[in-house]
Formats: sequence, structure tokens, C-alpha cells
Amino acid sequence: MYLRELMEDVQKHLGSEITLHGWIRNHRRQKDFGFIDFSDGTIFQHLQLVYDKDSEAFSEIASLRVGAAIEVTGILQESSGAGQNYELKICRFTLLGDCKEDYPLQPKPHSMEFLRSIAYLRPRANIFQAVFRIRSLAAMAIHTYFQERGYVYLHAPLITASDCEGAGEMFQVTTLPLDKIKGDVDYKKDFFGKKAGLTVSGQLQGETFASAFSKIYTFGPTFRAENSNTKTHAAEFWMIEPEVAFCDLTGIMDIQEEMLKFIVRYVLDHAKDELAFLDRFVEKGLVDKLEKLTKSQFTRIKHHDVITILKEANIKWEFEPVYGEDIAKEHEKFITEYFDGPVFITDWPRDIKAFYMKQNDDGTVAAADLEVPGVGELMGGSEREADYEKLVSRMDELNMDKTEMEWYLNLRRFGSVVHSGFGMGFERLLIYLTGVDNIRDVIAYPRTPGNCDF
Amino acid sequence: MYLRELMEDVQKHLGSEITLHGWIRNHRRQKDFGFIDFSDGTIFQHLQLVYDKDSEAFSEIASLRVGAAIEVTGILQESSGAGQNYELKICRFTLLGDCKEDYPLQPKPHSMEFLRSIAYLRPRANIFQAVFRIRSLAAMAIHTYFQERGYVYLHAPLITASDCEGAGEMFQVTTLPLDKIKGDVDYKKDFFGKKAGLTVSGQLQGETFASAFSKIYTFGPTFRAENSNTKTHAAEFWMIEPEVAFCDLTGIMDIQEEMLKFIVRYVLDHAKDELAFLDRFVEKGLVDKLEKLTKSQFTRIKHHDVITILKEANIKWEFEPVYGEDIAKEHEKFITEYFDGPVFITDWPRDIKAFYMKQNDDGTVAAADLEVPGVGELMGGSEREADYEKLVSRMDELNMDKTEMEWYLNLRRFGSVVHSGFGMGFERLLIYLTGVDNIRDVIAYPRTPGNCDF
Repeated sequence: MYLRELMEDVQKHLGSEITLHGWIRNHRRQKDFGFIDFSDGTIFQHLQLVYDKDSEAFSEIASLRVGAAIEVTGILQESSGAGQNYELKICRFTLLGDCKEDYPLQPKPHSMEFLRSIAYLRPRANIFQAVFRIRSLAAMAIHTYFQERGYVYLHAPLITASDCEGAGEMFQVTTLPLDKIKGDVDYKKDFFGKKAGLTVSGQLQGETFASAFSKIYTFGPTFRAENSNTKTHAAEFWMIEPEVAFCDLTGIMDIQEEMLKFIVRYVLDHAKDELAFLDRFVEKGLVDKLEKLTKSQFTRIKHHDVITILKEANIKWEFEPVYGEDIAKEHEKFITEYFDGPVFITDWPRDIKAFYMKQNDDGTVAAADLEVPGVGELMGGSEREADYEKLVSRMDELNMDKTEMEWYLNLRRFGSVVHSGFGMGFERLLIYLTGVDNIRDVIAYPRTPGNCDF
Repeated sequence: MYLRELMEDVQKHLGSEITLHGWIRNHRRQKDFGFIDFSDGTIFQHLQLVYDKDSEAFSEIASLRVGAAIEVTGILQESSGAGQNYELKICRFTLLGDCKEDYPLQPKPHSMEFLRSIAYLRPRANIFQAVFRIRSLAAMAIHTYFQERGYVYLHAPLITASDCEGAGEMFQVTTLPLDKIKGDVDYKKDFFGKKAGLTVSGQLQGETFASAFSKIYTFGPTFRAENSNTKTHAAEFWMIEPEVAFCDLTGIMDIQEEMLKFIVRYVLDHAKDELAFLDRFVEKGLVDKLEKLTKSQFTRIKHHDVITILKEANIKWEFEPVYGEDIAKEHEKFITEYFDGPVFITDWPRDIKAFYMKQNDDGTVAAADLEVPGVGELMGGSEREADYEKLVSRMDELNMDKTEMEWYLNLRRFGSVVHSGFGMGFERLLIYLTGVDNIRDVIAYPRTPGNCDF
């Protein structure tokens, strides 16, 4: 039986003999008795196994090592000890897989850096049991939110010959033998017959599906070959990119707000033990922060008015806020504190935003970035430019190649409609949900410059 | 209002004036009246819009083109016509986005090849409305099956420096400027400081998570740089790879069977209209086939016994069946017909299977391929070799490099347990679910040799 099944119906099993399989996470031995911290990872809580001198095979049990896998049969009983309601009195056990002496994950404090170096073992540690279960639950929350509302899930292509933002640094994908290249590269001989790379966004393809199904979302990996070693950048990460036809900027902000609250509520309801642990050891007040979000109303304010607030604030900025220019991390932080909650900043200067955003008459675009306390920009969305002529002229201004984008432009010639979408970095969301502040610790096997292990 | 909302509560709206947004899929004009086939893509069924000479703006309505986007307001009424229960009598309309004359998706028969060449428009066609909605629903079915049973969803890494099968042809991922390479390649200067490629499987990483959470699944993209132009091969496709600790080969086959029936049931329940369409136009008997599967019991038979059956069959084989060797497509087909349903073929000769599979005493491995009528091999699974010494000796026999795999081997040193897993190609499943026989038509933007468009 898995621990999850046992605990779902624990009263029924009280006093019964049950058999479990799992691992020893900790082992506290006394002279005449001992406690084993036992888990199979199917729930966050461990089960305490108890034994004493009268137990069959006392000395064999007492010699069991941390990390070892055992089958254990015992009687489930209420526990009088602190920290747990139930315990299993061991009747007998079988050692399934012993654990060698050099097991690095001994039950003592480890630095996050060290745990990253044993990324294949760290999911056994409490903090990663919490983080990766929340990652899984948050993914399910996202699918549930969209599927219940009739969205079609699109798997956008990963390998692509186009570049959505016209900006992101891309990884190249090739089957050419690199050591045989001499000077000119003949892409006709490459796998796809042309230069290809890893996508930085599935949005453009998402728009094609929204033009057919009205409501779609992507949820898949995206890539950036940026050589940045910050806490918030990884070369490979997952994005959610919904796209909705017959929906303007206000409509898409409504969806973003509802979706985020739904996800947070789902995780609060499904990961109580995990969040309690993270609240205690990682981010004090985490649960309150999340509860508060579900009840808050998100502020919506124009970029211009944000700059005014920043300028009028009695603060010595590292980067002076300027009308018409981007805002810095310190400004994002200030503005969410100023409004004490999430803030949509709308109507951005068009020159610092992407070509596909709907152009307003005043030199701004109908874009909205969602700034969230403690994490900064969590989502970026916009109404898309639906007018063929305006889109073409913007691409011309930016010297973009229109031939490769003809299909995208054609969406504006064949039944073009008002449509909007947004992108949410899944790991940014997880940093917010878990309080863990380094992206390397919410990705199972993070890829960053110089790091591609396991 | 979206059509989906309207139809969920259609009785309430009968006789009322409602406003919809969507596209004109077809338009049949008569002298004094006309019918517009209208859809917003949120459900499979279209709504018929009707108008006649007495309608306001009769001539403007009559001139509306296929592909155009409109806002339409009208009275919902029961329809006396064949093919639909309801229709909307147009009161007024607004042209939102016209459709140019060169719109390629005119309402007439198109070849699948032609539709592939306009992959950005084909999701508007009925067959792709069905296929991609089923793709989305099947994905949700998979997440639902595993999450309801307490599995943790793992995002396995896509970029990797190791090669799971030791065999698959991999795409290389690089940031080195190819045109500046002269002879030797200095991978220290590449993004990850070593040679990296796109994963062919997340299984090995899946095993590390199963050793922490017991029950996990992956669902993500995988890649093969195979230069094969068949109906069943794509360079980029999605795989589901569950991995379960404390589970042997019999246990994992039970899970596979239950999961497949769950998915099929889910799609039958959620995609009635889509399946009815595919049954009528793509694969006669599709719905019966799927219903039958949910009620069948899958056969389980050893590879050796399959060869015996093949040899004893009174058939002139193109490839003669041989004990100890792989079986061909024609054999797979025969054996599912022989047992009239899905067949697990177990206990394969170890020399034709992967190194990580549990070795039996008789030269076979504890592997099981699931053969399904009409699609062939749908899943491949095995119990994994949990014994360190046996795994090492097998890797040595195959001259595999153990240093890069030390972490994987260590799983057998740090609390090793019986565990099993399987892989299911998502597109293979979709070919089975939809009756569409070419993998290029169940992937939004398929990538195959020489093809990387959109």
C-alpha cells in the first residue's frame, strides 16, 4: 500500500496490520527503542515507524541506514508523540535496497548549492518534495482552469525557423557535423533544409489556433540562449501562452486575474502540508500572502501614471524613472508595495514593446504587464494588432523580414478579429507560490550557462 | 457570447435575441434567402444563420464571404431543416474582418497534402477542428488519470548531455557560430561548456523522481533526428513516460491498460460530435472500435509464444518470424487480429532491447510492448534493472560510458527498489483515437526532414 492510500482512509486502518514500502528518511536510535522517519513520497507527511527491544529483529532494525528502502509490516496506532497523529509499530520488515555509506543526502542541513549538485537525489529532501509536488499541482490547476472553460490546448512547435520577438537569443538546432564545417554553412544539408532553432515563444502559432478555436492555450517549454546567471533566468523553462479571439485588453486582464486566483486557490487547497512547511522554513507568511491574493482586486494603471507616481515618490532611485521608457526592478517592487498587491501596468510606450501589439493612437500599445509583490513581472500580455496595414507598417519600421511571416500577416487578411493573449513563465509562478527564490530550485534539472548535468 | 456557452444552455435562449462572434465557414445563397454556416470554434457544431429578403441589409448579408469574421445578432429558433436543431434568424450584423479573395480554405474538398501546406489555416477545417480538440482532450485525460491517482508530474529536461537509449539520433543544440568553426570544435565555448542535444526520452530522469515520489509521470516533447519520411515518424513529438516505484512488470501493465481505457472513455464522453464526424468521414467504425477497447481485456503473451503463433500461422510472411529476434509490422498486425484486441508482448530477447531493462534468467528482459489494432506498437514498458552489479555488467557488455551515467547508477546504490515504467507516444495515441493515419495531421506544426514551416 502507498502512504497516500493509507492516509486517505486512516481511521479504517487503525489497529490493523498493514504493509508499506518506502525509504528511511531519518533514524533516531535509543538504547532500547527507536524511531524511523519513513516515506514513500506519495504524500508530504512522513510516517513514524516505532520499534523497541521486544520487536522481532531489534538489532537488524536498529542498524537500518538513512536512505535505505524497506518493506515494513506493522500495526497502525495513534501516536502520543509530538509532531504526528499516527505511527506504525513494526512487526517485521524486509530490506529491499540498502543505502551505501557515501549517501550524500544525510539528514542534516545542506546548502541549496550543494543540493543542486545532487539534483538527482534532492527530490527526496523535504523542501523539494514540497516544491516539485506544488509544481505538479500548479500545472494541473492551469490545465483545469482552461479546459473547464473550453480552451483548446495547443502544443506549439519547439523547433522553429522563425523568431517570435525578433529579439531573443536562440539556440541553434542542427544535425550538421560541426567538426566538418569549413567556412560557409550549407543549410540545405541540415535536417530541415534551413537554419532552425529552439522557440522563444509559441504565441504566433497560438494566434493561428485562436483564429480557429477562439480560446486556446499553450503550456510547453521555451528557450533562451541568454548568457545571464541571475536567480530568475534559465535557458529552458515552461511557459503558458493563452490566446483569445473576440477579446480585448480589458478582457484578457480579467482572464489573467481570474486564472491566477484559480491557480493559487487550487494549490492552497491541494498542498496544505507543503505550503505549511514552506511557510515555516522558506518564506514566513507565505500562506497569508497567497490567501490574500485570492481575495484581492488587481490594480490597473497606465505606464504614464506609474512613472508619475515613481517620480513623486520621495525616493532616491538607482535608475531614474522616465516617461516613455522601461521601468526597473526597483520600480516594479515599489509599485506593488504602493498598491499593496498585484498591479497591471498598461499602455506602454510602443518603442519598448513587441511589434505585434495593438497600436494606440497616442504612441502607446495596448499591452499590460502584471507585476506581483515579491516576484516582479509575472505575466506580459497585450491585445494584438489585428489591422493588416498597421502591422505591416510597424514591421517595416523595425526592418523585419515579412516573407517568413507571410502566414502570420495573412491572419489579418482572412477574417481578422480583435484578439489578445499573454505569456506567463511557469517558474516565475512557482517562485511566487513556493517562496523559493532561485529558478534553479523550482526546475528539476535546470539548464543555465555552463550547466547541463543529468 | 461564445457558441459553447449558448449551447450549454440552449433552451434558455430559445426565442431570445443573442449576439455572437465568429467566422463564416460556408454560405449558401438563394435568390430570396440564404444560409450561413457559422462557427467560433468553441464547439464542433456550427450554427446555421438564416436570413431572407425581409432581413435588414439583405444584400450586404448575401455578399458576405467565406472566412469573414462577423458579429451577428439574431433570434435563436428551432430549425425545421435537416442537419441542425437550432438556427439563428439574423436581425443585424457587423463585418469584423473581411476575407480576401485568395483565401485558400474554400468550402470544397481539399487533399490532406494541400491542407498541410496551409497548416496555419487548417485548424479551421472540420477534420482539424475534430483532431486538435481531441488532442487537447486526450492531454487532459492523461493529466486527470495520473493526478487523481497521486502521481507527480515531472517536466524532464529537453536539452541534455546524455542519451537515454544510447542509440537514437539526436539533434545538436549549440550557440557556437557555425560559420566560424574551423576544424576542431571547442565545446568549452559552447553555451553549456559541453556538447548538448535534444532529449530522446525523459525516462532516466523520471527514475530519479520515482525514487523520491514513488509515482511520477512526464508529458513533454521529445526529439528524433531520424531521416525517415514515414507516416508515423516526426522529428518532434510528445511522449508520456510514467515511472512507478514498488511496481513490477505485471503492475505496470495493469496501469497501462487502465490508463488507456480511461483516456479512451474520457474522449468518448467529451468528444461525441468530433468522433461522430471522424467515424463518418475518416475511419468507419471508429466509435465502435473505441467502445470495444474500453470493455476488452488485453492479452498478455511472451515474445517466444508470439513467434510460435506466427510460425504456425498459415501465412507467407515478407519477414520470416525468428525466435530471439524482433517482429515486423506485419507480425504486429497479425497478432492483434489473432487476439482481436490489444496485446502485451512480454519477455523480449535482451539483445534487441535497452540496457536498463531488468534481466530475466533466461536471456530475456522484463519488457512489454503493447500492440494495438490499427496502430501497432503504442507503448513500450519494462521493469528496470534495480541491481547495481547487473546493470553495470550490462553496460560494460554494450561498451557504454559509465562516467556520464554515474548518477543513474547511483540510484541502485542509494535505496534501490523494484520499479517499472513505460513510454507512450502521444501522436500514436492520437492516430488511434482519431483514425487519421498520418502523424503530420495530428501535430499542429509537424517537423519532418526538410520541413520546418510556420
